[in-house]
Amino acid sequence: MTDTTLRYFKQQLPGLAGRYKLDVPDCPVKLNQNENAWDWPAHLKQQVFERVRDVPWNRYPPFVPAEFVARVARHLGADPAQVLVGNGSNELLYAIFVSTLERGRKVVIPQPTFTVYKLLADLLGAEVVTDGLDDEMQYDAAALERASQDAAVVVLATPNNPTGSVINPTDLEHLVFNSPALWVIDEAYFEFHGESALELAANARNLVVLRTFSKALSAAGLRFGAMVAHPEAAPVFSAAKLPYNVNIFTMAAIEVAMENAVSMKARVEEIKRERERVARHLRDFKGIKVYPSRANFLLFETGRDPRELWKAMVSRGVLVRDVSGYPRLGKALRVSIGRPEENDAFIKALEYAMTIVP
Amino acid sequence: MTDTTLRYFKQQLPGLAGRYKLDVPDCPVKLNQNENAWDWPAHLKQQVFERVRDVPWNRYPPFVPAEFVARVARHLGADPAQVLVGNGSNELLYAIFVSTLERGRKVVIPQPTFTVYKLLADLLGAEVVTDGLDDEMQYDAAALERASQDAAVVVLATPNNPTGSVINPTDLEHLVFNSPALWVIDEAYFEFHGESALELAANARNLVVLRTFSKALSAAGLRFGAMVAHPEAAPVFSAAKLPYNVNIFTMAAIEVAMENAVSMKARVEEIKRERERVARHLRDFKGIKVYPSRANFLLFETGRDPRELWKAMVSRGVLVRDVSGYPRLGKALRVSIGRPEENDAFIKALEYAMTIVP
Repeated sequence: MTDTTLRYFKQQLPGLAGRYKLDVPDCPVKLNQNENAWDWPAHLKQQVFERVRDVPWNRYPPFVPAEFVARVARHLGADPAQVLVGNGSNELLYAIFVSTLERGRKVVIPQPTFTVYKLLADLLGAEVVTDGLDDEMQYDAAALERASQDAAVVVLATPNNPTGSVINPTDLEHLVFNSPALWVIDEAYFEFHGESALELAANARNLVVLRTFSKALSAAGLRFGAMVAHPEAAPVFSAAKLPYNVNIFTMAAIEVAMENAVSMKARVEEIKRERERVARHLRDFKGIKVYPSRANFLLFETGRDPRELWKAMVSRGVLVRDVSGYPRLGKALRVSIGRPEENDAFIKALEYAMTIVP
Repeated sequence: MTDTTLRYFKQQLPGLAGRYKLDVPDCPVKLNQNENAWDWPAHLKQQVFERVRDVPWNRYPPFVPAEFVARVARHLGADPAQVLVGNGSNELLYAIFVSTLERGRKVVIPQPTFTVYKLLADLLGAEVVTDGLDDEMQYDAAALERASQDAAVVVLATPNNPTGSVINPTDLEHLVFNSPALWVIDEAYFEFHGESALELAANARNLVVLRTFSKALSAAGLRFGAMVAHPEAAPVFSAAKLPYNVNIFTMAAIEVAMENAVSMKARVEEIKRERERVARHLRDFKGIKVYPSRANFLLFETGRDPRELWKAMVSRGVLVRDVSGYPRLGKALRVSIGRPEENDAFIKALEYAMTIVP
């Protein structure tokens, strides 16, 4: 493929082959995507089917699904005028970036973080600055303030994937009010942490909050996320989002999920307890460093070859995420917190791996 | 809202308030969105529920849904390496534009056509050229060839919405092989026409075909579309598409739709017959001009005020599309072809409207 045969492409993206991808051997214990390990109970699935049965499938969804957006807004604790909905929060991040980034504009994406942010920024030809996380992978407010001054956008995941770090709310408020940039706060793991920038979004025109239903709410297969912006900014972001983006199935399912969020919260508490239990076990291993996490996963470093450890655990039926290809994480692995028996299987598999990988 | 408070936006889009939107009074006869008037039969909906019941909702869809893509490719008659899938063909067009357009690049979008094309091109700051349809709203190959020479992209809907016009296949082949631009052929209404550029996509690196399941396949509520590109170009477009974009519901439903496409084809034949019947009725009206159409809708012009005609028909419970705000269509309305009784209701409502609107 050469520039002359495909010169309509505005750029040949560097390292296409190495872009976001995933190794997924079939393992009984799947702890590689920070999913919620509990599927929906059958009666809730049935409720979704009952609702979607009588909706016409041949008709477009409502042009503005006002009632649905209002329910999502109530669930989040925001005003409906602030809320946009999408097929996963990634679709909304795409709309945010298209609204704000282009060649010659700068975006701050502290590394290491969720891979997709940089891939989308690269697509738009924006300059990506990676400052913002210190040597202990904690957010560095002074570095963020410096980097944000001539940036159009700053993206902060809090808790951050894969490091588990969170931004201090006082720091964030100071940053937002002392920087001209748009602050995109990805709260995909919010429920496992508990602190949110949502209230700031009602007051600051330059802050948006992303939320997903893929983690705590067990809906990764449904692909649904929401965005909360200032009411004056929301319509501009909305213009970069396709009409009818969320389908009738997803809307019905997310309604059922929101109505049953209370019962799902018990799972979140269990996951948080398990996170602390697994972290204690990891700290008992000699030579393993565990980063503090407020999410449903743990990042840990060993002195061993992470790929070999990963393979050894796969051979024992446990799939974790090899994040050693991420910037600054050459020795790290990430494990999602699953059901107690899955977490036990992980600890055993890691024990085994540490005995056979030098 | 001023540039100083929201200066992170790369542009304040012109006429935000007047962007893609839809007037949707509640009418029993809905002929405004070129939908298929027939909902899915209950047993097919049930099949979808059975399939999706046993899929884990808490897990992400497969990272590369290879089996599903292969089925879509077989349905379309393409190679799986050529096919990308999305939430409606619009999502794929968005990915195409992000791959090819930015400030300083040119895109040819012959007007009048589907509104979303220009909205997306504007988002990316591209220069939009509107040449390509002649006075009779037919594609003008010479004009297209001229306009395409310094363009990155040309978008042709065939049949075109809202004019119903189609590109001549010989003209298209000549254009594609004599222009450096990427030719995006939107075949949303393909089934009502029967001619496709699909085979060209296997040979030309600078042509892509878009297909939707929202029209002939009665799946507008499910939001699903596909794209067929040259195998060498497809991976570059794929890099501009989000991972996991199509959810587990949509995949299950589209599988059922493809397995039952034969039974749906009978509806397509009925719609085509009805199109010709409605066109004959319209031609019987004095002072109405009907454009030839190969799609599931008809464009017609009257000497009367189109908004007043539209209102009079709404008062009789018939909703058509007022397209008089489209470029060059100041006197036009568009009617989707529905069930026979709905088409009869439209003709009666139009008769009524023509008597009361001067």
